[in-house]
Amino acid sequence: MFRPVSSSSFSSVSAILTKEQQSNLPENKIEETHLKLAFDFKSYMLEKANSVNQALDSAVPLKHPEKIHESMRYSLLAGGKRVRPMLCIAACELVGGDPLTAMPAACAVEMIHTMSLMHDDLPCMDNDDFRRGKPTNHIVYGEDVAVLAGDALLSFSFEHIATATEGVSSDRILRAIGELAKCIGSEGLVAGQVVDICSEGADVGLDHLEFIHLHKTAALLEGSVVLGAIMGGGSDEEIEKLRKFARSIGLLFQVVDDILDVTKSSEELGKTAGKDLVADKTTYPKLLGIEKSREFAEKLNKEAQEQLLEFDQIKAAPLIALANYIAYREN
Amino acid sequence: MFRPVSSSSFSSVSAILTKEQQSNLPENKIEETHLKLAFDFKSYMLEKANSVNQALDSAVPLKHPEKIHESMRYSLLAGGKRVRPMLCIAACELVGGDPLTAMPAACAVEMIHTMSLMHDDLPCMDNDDFRRGKPTNHIVYGEDVAVLAGDALLSFSFEHIATATEGVSSDRILRAIGELAKCIGSEGLVAGQVVDICSEGADVGLDHLEFIHLHKTAALLEGSVVLGAIMGGGSDEEIEKLRKFARSIGLLFQVVDDILDVTKSSEELGKTAGKDLVADKTTYPKLLGIEKSREFAEKLNKEAQEQLLEFDQIKAAPLIALANYIAYREN
Repeated sequence: MFRPVSSSSFSSVSAILTKEQQSNLPENKIEETHLKLAFDFKSYMLEKANSVNQALDSAVPLKHPEKIHESMRYSLLAGGKRVRPMLCIAACELVGGDPLTAMPAACAVEMIHTMSLMHDDLPCMDNDDFRRGKPTNHIVYGEDVAVLAGDALLSFSFEHIATATEGVSSDRILRAIGELAKCIGSEGLVAGQVVDICSEGADVGLDHLEFIHLHKTAALLEGSVVLGAIMGGGSDEEIEKLRKFARSIGLLFQVVDDILDVTKSSEELGKTAGKDLVADKTTYPKLLGIEKSREFAEKLNKEAQEQLLEFDQIKAAPLIALANYIAYREN
Repeated sequence: MFRPVSSSSFSSVSAILTKEQQSNLPENKIEETHLKLAFDFKSYMLEKANSVNQALDSAVPLKHPEKIHESMRYSLLAGGKRVRPMLCIAACELVGGDPLTAMPAACAVEMIHTMSLMHDDLPCMDNDDFRRGKPTNHIVYGEDVAVLAGDALLSFSFEHIATATEGVSSDRILRAIGELAKCIGSEGLVAGQVVDICSEGADVGLDHLEFIHLHKTAALLEGSVVLGAIMGGGSDEEIEKLRKFARSIGLLFQVVDDILDVTKSSEELGKTAGKDLVADKTTYPKLLGIEKSREFAEKLNKEAQEQLLEFDQIKAAPLIALANYIAYREN
């Protein structure tokens, strides 16, 4: 079901950074990036996504009652880059674990991500009719089934970790379950979502904005690496370093997203540009200006990668590449 | 926070069965009931409910972000008989466990029950504006917050079991988590709910009706006793007996509910009578007739109590009393 990274994943930095991105980097940065990213991030991501897709397909088979399982599978198997499972598996490998031990946890974080999208898309929340070019779950199956399928995925994520994880002590599995639950609920994803909802139209400061993104975006990324590191047998120190890494890349993702919204055209983004300005949304560029936002993004990427310095740099390559991918993406 | 059953809970059968209920019972049944129910069920229930209410209040404190915690607490602390936590604690004590070890699990099953009511009450589901005389969660906090607060309670139930259970091995806690998750998701509560939704207006048979009730009602009762028995150190055999007990009383509850709907007046029920007939709902009386439905209820109560025969009968008293309460209630 899951194969360790093949050596073919390792190639040159040009596979991950465009020429323009490279020319934007200082000379020493390029060299450093060359050194750390001498591996084919795209192939690595595809390989992990394939294994995760197969594992998700097996974990949630189509069975009676068909309608609920169809609805769960419709959103769960709708594609996506599978960033969170990749983070989970990469963290497991980074601390020296067998990636197979992290696969149920990797599937679980994707189930949580999916259920959060299903509930976010509901008419009473963001009221989105399309996601990734497909009608959203409630459009296809009805709102009632979409709510229930989200609930089922949420509870199944815990069942899957509790019953399908092999080769890990019960103590560690239990710790992982506690971590996962915390990053979903009223101190995690849900906290970010509800504060975001309550802030609509309000003038909010930097701390408030950071609270929203640390919870809405970073919490589940944090859960993903922490679960991977726990399953892989990581020490407390390693787990905390990876937690900090994930929080930094979570914020980084949002800062870059905000910058792209004001600096790129809709054509370049592949989605409507300037949406935040139109919606009068509080963003990093609005609070800090473009230049300071870029500096903040640099700082976050640096802080993220500093957490990885004491790990084996070959094994850290996927996480370094992901941080750079988030930092230097153009859409 | 939680005290073992006081001896004051033990009193006469008249405290639990009304005169009319007793006169409806055959002579040998009254004697048997006297023997087994020689304890004050009402006091026992109140005592357990008080401990559980205190534990729930501490488990979900009002903290930042206030709105989501207010919403969670609004429904969680809205009263109710706390039947599921009582089942959990009683099962723990029945297998010889310390009731304190089952308290986080007891709170967790009540959190699940609450979240299922919150999501069921949503406009896209049953669209109920009132529950227990109070406006439903989405009426007070909005649909978006009600969906999110349900999600938060769902994930917190797992966190609470994983992090707050004391004096139980990780193996057992993990097993309990797997059981809880299974009774919620697409093979439990959610399965019952979705099959019920899909059956509206359709002619369904006895097997279909039983599937709905075994999942919508019995699954979480089953989870409650099974979790209690696991935490209390019960053997596999004891756990399976209690599982069967819970499935029987779950069905029993529904059969009696259906009978009361057609045999009692609205005044006697304290709610609208004949609702099932008006809604042309498939019920046991509709499929079997009243007399056969009463026989079926008798059979289920007998089957439930048979599962308890090999346990200490003093310790089994709360579960026996609950089965009789469900069987002979008048509203």
